[in-house]
Amino acid sequence: MRIAELSQRSGVTVPTIKYYLREGLLPPGQPTGRNQAAYGEQHLQRLLLIRALRDVGGLSVAAAREVLQVLDEPGHTGHTLMGRAHRAVLRRERPDATGPDWAQARADAAEQVRQLGWYVDPDTPTLDRLADVILAMRRVGCADLLDRIPDYARAALPVAEQEVAGAAAAEDPATMMAAVVTGTVLGEALLSAVRLLAHEHASAQLDGADLGQIDVTQRSNHADSP
Amino acid sequence: MRIAELSQRSGVTVPTIKYYLREGLLPPGQPTGRNQAAYGEQHLQRLLLIRALRDVGGLSVAAAREVLQVLDEPGHTGHTLMGRAHRAVLRRERPDATGPDWAQARADAAEQVRQLGWYVDPDTPTLDRLADVILAMRRVGCADLLDRIPDYARAALPVAEQEVAGAAAAEDPATMMAAVVTGTVLGEALLSAVRLLAHEHASAQLDGADLGQIDVTQRSNHADSP
Repeated sequence: MRIAELSQRSGVTVPTIKYYLREGLLPPGQPTGRNQAAYGEQHLQRLLLIRALRDVGGLSVAAAREVLQVLDEPGHTGHTLMGRAHRAVLRRERPDATGPDWAQARADAAEQVRQLGWYVDPDTPTLDRLADVILAMRRVGCADLLDRIPDYARAALPVAEQEVAGAAAAEDPATMMAAVVTGTVLGEALLSAVRLLAHEHASAQLDGADLGQIDVTQRSNHADSP
Repeated sequence: MRIAELSQRSGVTVPTIKYYLREGLLPPGQPTGRNQAAYGEQHLQRLLLIRALRDVGGLSVAAAREVLQVLDEPGHTGHTLMGRAHRAVLRRERPDATGPDWAQARADAAEQVRQLGWYVDPDTPTLDRLADVILAMRRVGCADLLDRIPDYARAALPVAEQEVAGAAAAEDPATMMAAVVTGTVLGEALLSAVRLLAHEHASAQLDGADLGQIDVTQRSNHADSP
């Protein structure tokens, strides 16, 4: 298909597609003439994956490129694929991490994981991320949350196990790619959205709202879009 | 204290503090002369809160300002406070949401919540967010994940209930502020980090790594920072 059709079917504008081509997120099409190329279904699939990473996962162009490069390399096991995808995802948002307070938070993060009995690489950037969160919680006066990390772990583990099993069960590279993206970026977005809905539910019950009257499927404005 | 001491104690540079003052994230200090002002402990606390929202929560300056403005308004119940904080948090990353596919995903999101029996405002932006995720999953070929939303809900609910209860139990506005920030932004970051660690654990077990040898508290490079 021509770039115009690719744009129409993916919902991504032609200038944005050209930008992804220049940046190497999207492989080039088959040249059909000076300044023209033909694109296939795999380009369409890749574009939808890029949009999911960028729009829903909130990844930068650089982080999305890193995820896609990992997925394109042959010979990864599910474990290394997911580890590399994690590193790409975690690149997106990290504060400066220095000083004795951060070092203490990093040690506490590792100790928490040790107490959980989880098998995790001591040098994984995910522990740095957990240390960032612990330090921020201490600084805003929520240090007691450290005690609740096991509750968060209990909540996260069954979901993570399902996501990993889904990626491991994939029979071909395209399915594996989709499953790894689900298991990292989209799974996080899903858990985040569901958690906020659970907040609203828990909060409504606590405030004693008029709970009998709500039908969540009936919008007041009947709009198709926000 | 002078702005230099505020910078030193918070770890935020003087130009960034001046930027937050101009942008209204930080209230002005007490003028002590032409171009000089004195700042108190509440400025330090506010700065640490801003850094947590920005660095760990990944919020834009505009979204952080919105959260802080909500927290500064008097007379909110815990429920309205959390709802407004959600709206500010959710502003950060939304794709375009139009067309029949998105409308279908939005209806499916509401139906999922109805089946959970959760009391949620039919017009809440959180349902828009869930619809974004559902649509992205369909587009990258993970539509079967819809069936697993109840698993995510089961995982998220106990954590959310604790977070909401923590905010509701706050005895003064400063504690409530910290608890709401925990319950929305930092709680999400914590759950995200723990979920990625759970991935690594689940993935290591599946790949049959040499699990007996790992002590997560022993880093190979003994670095204080990544």
